[in-house]
Amino acid sequence: MIKVGIIGATGYAGGELVRILTNHPEAEIKWYGSKSYIGKKYYEVYRNMFQIVDEECLDDNIEELAEQVDVIFTATPQGYLASILTEDILKKVKVVDLSADYRIKDVAVYEKWYGIEHKSPQFIEEAVYGLCEINRDKITADTRLVANPGCYTTCSILTCYPLVKEGLIDVDTLIVDAKSGTSGAGRGAKMPNLFCEVNENMKAYGVANHRHTPEIEEQLGYAGNCEVTLNFTPHLVPMNRGILATAYAKLIRKADGSLPTEAQVRQAYAKYFDKEKFVRLLDKGECPETKWVEGSNYVDVNFVIDERTGRVIMMGAIDNLMKGAAGQAVQNMNLLFGLPEEMGLELVPCFP
Amino acid sequence: MIKVGIIGATGYAGGELVRILTNHPEAEIKWYGSKSYIGKKYYEVYRNMFQIVDEECLDDNIEELAEQVDVIFTATPQGYLASILTEDILKKVKVVDLSADYRIKDVAVYEKWYGIEHKSPQFIEEAVYGLCEINRDKITADTRLVANPGCYTTCSILTCYPLVKEGLIDVDTLIVDAKSGTSGAGRGAKMPNLFCEVNENMKAYGVANHRHTPEIEEQLGYAGNCEVTLNFTPHLVPMNRGILATAYAKLIRKADGSLPTEAQVRQAYAKYFDKEKFVRLLDKGECPETKWVEGSNYVDVNFVIDERTGRVIMMGAIDNLMKGAAGQAVQNMNLLFGLPEEMGLELVPCFP
Amino acid sequence: MIKVGIIGATGYAGGELVRILTNHPEAEIKWYGSKSYIGKKYYEVYRNMFQIVDEECLDDNIEELAEQVDVIFTATPQGYLASILTEDILKKVKVVDLSADYRIKDVAVYEKWYGIEHKSPQFIEEAVYGLCEINRDKITADTRLVANPGCYTTCSILTCYPLVKEGLIDVDTLIVDAKSGTSGAGRGAKMPNLFCEVNENMKAYGVANHRHTPEIEEQLGYAGNCEVTLNFTPHLVPMNRGILATAYAKLIRKADGSLPTEAQVRQAYAKYFDKEKFVRLLDKGECPETKWVEGSNYVDVNFVIDERTGRVIMMGAIDNLMKGAAGQAVQNMNLLFGLPEEMGLELVPCFP
Amino acid sequence: MIKVGIIGATGYAGGELVRILTNHPEAEIKWYGSKSYIGKKYYEVYRNMFQIVDEECLDDNIEELAEQVDVIFTATPQGYLASILTEDILKKVKVVDLSADYRIKDVAVYEKWYGIEHKSPQFIEEAVYGLCEINRDKITADTRLVANPGCYTTCSILTCYPLVKEGLIDVDTLIVDAKSGTSGAGRGAKMPNLFCEVNENMKAYGVANHRHTPEIEEQLGYAGNCEVTLNFTPHLVPMNRGILATAYAKLIRKADGSLPTEAQVRQAYAKYFDKEKFVRLLDKGECPETKWVEGSNYVDVNFVIDERTGRVIMMGAIDNLMKGAAGQAVQNMNLLFGLPEEMGLELVPCFP
Repeated sequence: MIKVGIIGATGYAGGELVRILTNHPEAEIKWYGSKSYIGKKYYEVYRNMFQIVDEECLDDNIEELAEQVDVIFTATPQGYLASILTEDILKKVKVVDLSADYRIKDVAVYEKWYGIEHKSPQFIEEAVYGLCEINRDKITADTRLVANPGCYTTCSILTCYPLVKEGLIDVDTLIVDAKSGTSGAGRGAKMPNLFCEVNENMKAYGVANHRHTPEIEEQLGYAGNCEVTLNFTPHLVPMNRGILATAYAKLIRKADGSLPTEAQVRQAYAKYFDKEKFVRLLDKGECPETKWVEGSNYVDVNFVIDERTGRVIMMGAIDNLMKGAAGQAVQNMNLLFGLPEEMGLELVPCFP
Repeated sequence: MIKVGIIGATGYAGGELVRILTNHPEAEIKWYGSKSYIGKKYYEVYRNMFQIVDEECLDDNIEELAEQVDVIFTATPQGYLASILTEDILKKVKVVDLSADYRIKDVAVYEKWYGIEHKSPQFIEEAVYGLCEINRDKITADTRLVANPGCYTTCSILTCYPLVKEGLIDVDTLIVDAKSGTSGAGRGAKMPNLFCEVNENMKAYGVANHRHTPEIEEQLGYAGNCEVTLNFTPHLVPMNRGILATAYAKLIRKADGSLPTEAQVRQAYAKYFDKEKFVRLLDKGECPETKWVEGSNYVDVNFVIDERTGRVIMMGAIDNLMKGAAGQAVQNMNLLFGLPEEMGLELVPCFP
Repeated sequence: MIKVGIIGATGYAGGELVRILTNHPEAEIKWYGSKSYIGKKYYEVYRNMFQIVDEECLDDNIEELAEQVDVIFTATPQGYLASILTEDILKKVKVVDLSADYRIKDVAVYEKWYGIEHKSPQFIEEAVYGLCEINRDKITADTRLVANPGCYTTCSILTCYPLVKEGLIDVDTLIVDAKSGTSGAGRGAKMPNLFCEVNENMKAYGVANHRHTPEIEEQLGYAGNCEVTLNFTPHLVPMNRGILATAYAKLIRKADGSLPTEAQVRQAYAKYFDKEKFVRLLDKGECPETKWVEGSNYVDVNFVIDERTGRVIMMGAIDNLMKGAAGQAVQNMNLLFGLPEEMGLELVPCFP
Repeated sequence: MIKVGIIGATGYAGGELVRILTNHPEAEIKWYGSKSYIGKKYYEVYRNMFQIVDEECLDDNIEELAEQVDVIFTATPQGYLASILTEDILKKVKVVDLSADYRIKDVAVYEKWYGIEHKSPQFIEEAVYGLCEINRDKITADTRLVANPGCYTTCSILTCYPLVKEGLIDVDTLIVDAKSGTSGAGRGAKMPNLFCEVNENMKAYGVANHRHTPEIEEQLGYAGNCEVTLNFTPHLVPMNRGILATAYAKLIRKADGSLPTEAQVRQAYAKYFDKEKFVRLLDKGECPETKWVEGSNYVDVNFVIDERTGRVIMMGAIDNLMKGAAGQAVQNMNLLFGLPEEMGLELVPCFP
């Protein structure tokens, strides 16, 4: 039984970790860390867990935690883990970080986009970017620190990855227009996230400056072995869960001037995703819908070629709290401990 | 492995059966019956099941089905099962009926409220009303036919049962005001159920004539060993899942004119629900919320005593597709086959 | 042109006052009071008003305001107006108070339910309860202070008024089960009102102790010329606007033991509402829906007689920000200044 | 008083026409055409209009209508008006067509994208494309036929128009990613538009083949005096009203290689929209939100320059039933009859 500690157990991502791990056959939560609710029963914060979880919330004492558990999930604000992580802790315990602290290899890029100083850049190099489908072989029993990808990033990267990797699209023309449910904004009491402000409303935000941009660029850059600079625009949509990414890029024409065919593009997706449990390449003509993955760890992707414009429209859908956060974090934990990757994650999407 | 057939597998309740049974360790769906989609892949009807269920939809041939499976779930319109059920079928297979056909013991009452003739009244007597918490001991290996309770009924009965049973309330004053998400209205293409008609809207319907009324009355009548005639008013609310019942009744004063105390009423609830896995009596002061049970088989109940009016306000919340339909049906299946009652039903409520 | 000042112009009710008054042909807002946003453009707080309102938010200086305007609307927290209102102010300006400070005639009742001391009880007697359809003749050029009714109260009272007034129901059996959209909870940044907490969720709250209870009781008591003690239960529903009240009471049987007929009950409603612009008695069989009144000042009411239980189910729907707050406040202003009661309020309900 | 007839008065756009025209000071609806509801009271189809509109629905007899009214609005399926319009009718009455029949000048393009034969191409030339802000001077007392623009088109064109017109962007790089509320899908009873299918869900549809594409291309082509071929991707979002367009294009660099400045781009928008009543160019940094224009005829637009990618992100928001359909149609009517363009359209956006 893997002993698990969660720091930030009472945010939405933390709550989703608890929901998953409660039914995980090889893991057991030993520490519900939540500095806002210390001493409160966890079920008083999330009443859905009444009679399921009886433990109290504890403080965020990572040293103490490192003594008691095998793996720590940190679902904490940006900069928090970087400010407390030490070599000593990493010697004792594995860490899966749901914040952005170790996702970006270039510390200057991190500091510029996040507007904060990175307090422990010495661990960035070692941290593995935990996008399991792509970096699976780097997430092993030897790995100490996993940077769990962002929600928008997971969706955006997996949507575009095969075509970037296979060199089928001109990355300089790549644009990702993403739409997210509101749980991505967290459980903090902020006026713009009130029901009446979000409901029956829609808007773009973080236009040209959202923090997930450099993360997408870096990872797609690795895939394409090139510099990627793209536009990423997130939108807020009146629903609880779900991210939909719609990406646009020019297909690279063949020597004869023709576009890659539907079959060729499909083949590229199939090459990377056919054996993936959690990535579902939809049938031709089907557009991903967020509801079809809700509550599950699936990523649904598909594409349409527009002969008129020479572009491919790539689409992907995830549950932002699952594959976009807690689900992927557990997937990483499974890899770290040599368990079947899908263990505890075979939750069937809930419809309607 | 229990072999399962579903007639009506493509309605919302049928879809929920599939979601649950897909992960049930002792059951296997052998027949996805759906007369509207014969020959279509099931996942083409519910895309959430893509790469999870690969079977095609079959017709509703109950005789054939009876040969092939151990249990049939019928998630069909009222009157359908009654028109096709035979002794021969019941000799071969157990049936859990999610329609109303065998819920009401008095066929005249059924025919009056449903406005249709009952085609096989000979099976009514034998059918067990499958409200597991109350009729558990009647649902056994010998049972052939289970009448799975209605969604509103399940919620309403469990909310009031202990106080009726213990004689703490005057049943002549009982009123149940219930509110439901829209999945209860089914997947049929009807204008009043369009998104734009339901969203940002609320209404009562079926006032004084909703078909779940006699079912609630009959079952509470058994509990109280008396005639029960009550008002039941359902409302449509803009959400997918969830039923909330708010019930009102006069508490019966003690000989000295005083009301039963909070502790006494709580004790009555505890007497019947303390050992129940799926019924959660909330802490004093907590009102049930539908979101806390969403996606799960739980029923959350609580009450408030109003000293001013001498009434008790009883409240209950369920997921109408789970405890209100498919979840309870699987709970019944587990009982029928001697499995642990909660098998396959330990789904943690999903929040948010 | 009536000069209008608003204290609390940036809450949802204040915003709705601005929306209405912007198009009112005889009124002009001179003071957008909002202590949280002093110095900010009003449109920066409500971007829907961009290029419509160019004024800045001002502080809540009621003395200064009294010099400059003809009528002040106070859309402020309970107790605020009571703590600042003076004879001197009332000599200069009319006040329409959207808070509860002067709604309840018995100061002890107010202090008990609201849990605060009333700082200016000397004005309670003089304040007119501004439920226009009932107290119209008391709202005149001589009136200085109007207590604008609460949202739940307006809906509940108008739903039941004719039957209480005509003595058709036993008020001791009266129960009001009400459901409200979330704008009633205000624009304050509170976690329970976040989108993800309210959306896809439903709950009762304030059970047996909601503050609108004594207000409903007092007004229905005047109507029935009797003491009224009832159960009022509010529920939170995932929509922006709208209140639906479902009320239950025993019909008083006639000497021969028969119930009042549909026609007789309808006649009672018609007697009070037939000439009312803003109250619509629906056709038999139609249940009020909140969407049908959204954005308008209408109250839709109807009823069903249940012969089985001898009860009448009364139903009413309003837009809580319109007839439940700002719309009724403007209706009161119109009466105070001798204008046609519907002036500026002929907004057609918006569907869908 | 302008006498108005509506063919298709019971669709959502038709209903919105009725809502607006009911309060229009110079127009009067004489004919509520609805072939599905002939003989029914209009308010039985839209209960919000109870006691506001007392007329019955009539058939779609356009010849008869042409005798009785001054202007006909056709809110009908594609191809319908084209199949019944005659010279004789146009001699008697003005027609504002909310369908696509006369929007596209090239009949071959129309027939290809709509997949139907155009039955009266002889009127295409004469029809004025009624995007008032751009074609205002062509909509006069002499105009007989106005092709009212599509909802997505109105939003997309106005969002991009100034930059195309001023030659600031490379139109070959133009991509419009649009998101719409569900009322755009109409009131027909279709399963994919059921509440439970749309709610908590999001998807793209009509990818690379949505019919509004050639309309946007044609109009932007006129603006830029060039061929425009672009990607337009609509998405369905769980809300009733509102369209948000997010458009991307490369800014054309100046001779010195620098990008146009924020001020220059803003100046281009201001040049075309500063005097427009219904187009609001937001302050720098503000992203349009659909809720800010809900229920009104406004278009909110703004942009962000991304120095990193050299692109400009243009954003626009409308209410699809107002500026995207009925509001613009009335705006056209006002122009046709020499009335102030904003008459009857000064509806303040409703928030929340």
